Amino acid sequence: MITKKQMDDAIKKSLEYLDNASIVLTEAEKENIEIADFGLGRLDEIGLEIITYINTQRVCAKELILFPNQLCPEHRHPDVDEKHGKEETFRCRWGKVYLYVPGEPAKNPSGKPPADKLGHFTAWHEIILNPGEQYTLFPDTLHWFQAGPQGAVVSEFSTTSIDEADIFTDPMIKRIPEVSD
Amino acid sequence: MITKKQMDDAIKKSLEYLDNASIVLTEAEKENIEIADFGLGRLDEIGLEIITYINTQRVCAKELILFPNQLCPEHRHPDVDEKHGKEETFRCRWGKVYLYVPGEPAKNPSGKPPADKLGHFTAWHEIILNPGEQYTLFPDTLHWFQAGPQGAVVSEFSTTSIDEADIFTDPMIKRIPEVSD
Repeated sequence: MITKKQMDDAIKKSLEYLDNASIVLTEAEKENIEIADFGLGRLDEIGLEIITYINTQRVCAKELILFPNQLCPEHRHPDVDEKHGKEETFRCRWGKVYLYVPGEPAKNPSGKPPADKLGHFTAWHEIILNPGEQYTLFPDTLHWFQAGPQGAVVSEFSTTSIDEADIFTDPMIKRIPEVSD
Repeated sequence: MITKKQMDDAIKKSLEYLDNASIVLTEAEKENIEIADFGLGRLDEIGLEIITYINTQRVCAKELILFPNQLCPEHRHPDVDEKHGKEETFRCRWGKVYLYVPGEPAKNPSGKPPADKLGHFTAWHEIILNPGEQYTLFPDTLHWFQAGPQGAVVSEFSTTSIDEADIFTDPMIKRIPEVSD
């Protein structure tokens, strides 16, 4: 659960980060920034701010904003109705992102999930993305990512987003937000 | 035909425009900027500078750079091997772009193709894109676009690019460049 006030504050802060990255939005887009708290009510730690530029039957493009040390929890994009799952490329535009996928685990990972949620983070192969660096995830690959201490702005280029189909490792997560007054 | 010197100059100039838009590239990307003169040898008028971030079997993302008044000539993306043609969204990041598609023609269009090539521009419905504004083209839609007097940087989010399949209105055009010393 997230309050209207928390959402408004997060939108305002998101606009500052976009400004850091010199990314220009229309007024309509500014009013449509999505604040995802994943139903956990601890947005500063586990959350993501999203601008969806386009999401058709074939292509999706977004900007993702992460506040300092904020993380997007581990999940994957399975096949839906015999269509291949979402393929996505993350391109860091500003700040720094630590991205984790299955593979050789990092010895001293920079990403630090909250202690009480650590069991829901299983992929520990680390990819560090600085501005201009990118990584492509093919369908159904488990992944999570966390901003560095300054936060991050990340462009996502992908096939269609079907958020409600995403499978999160943490069973407490609800991808579609619930907002209170 | 384009000379190596002209290409190098265009690459150098492209980097300045990306800098205007605060877009960061890796060193490898900087060395891989594509200069498309469409085989006409008049790059300043008819040409496009391209950075391809990703081009898989499903998704493609690019930055397009247009120098002042430079234009990308009229073309369309047909179906290829029973796959639907390319769907693309153009999002202006910096400068100004005049985009033309079929429909009600503009009375006083801002786009001005060279007089000797005017017959190869048939779509005159005008869409003006300022920073933060975008337009989505569905497959096989004829289109051409021209930068305003300051030039432009445009993000393209699309399905797979298959440049050699593009159909240009001007029969003189060769999409795949020929470079001389």
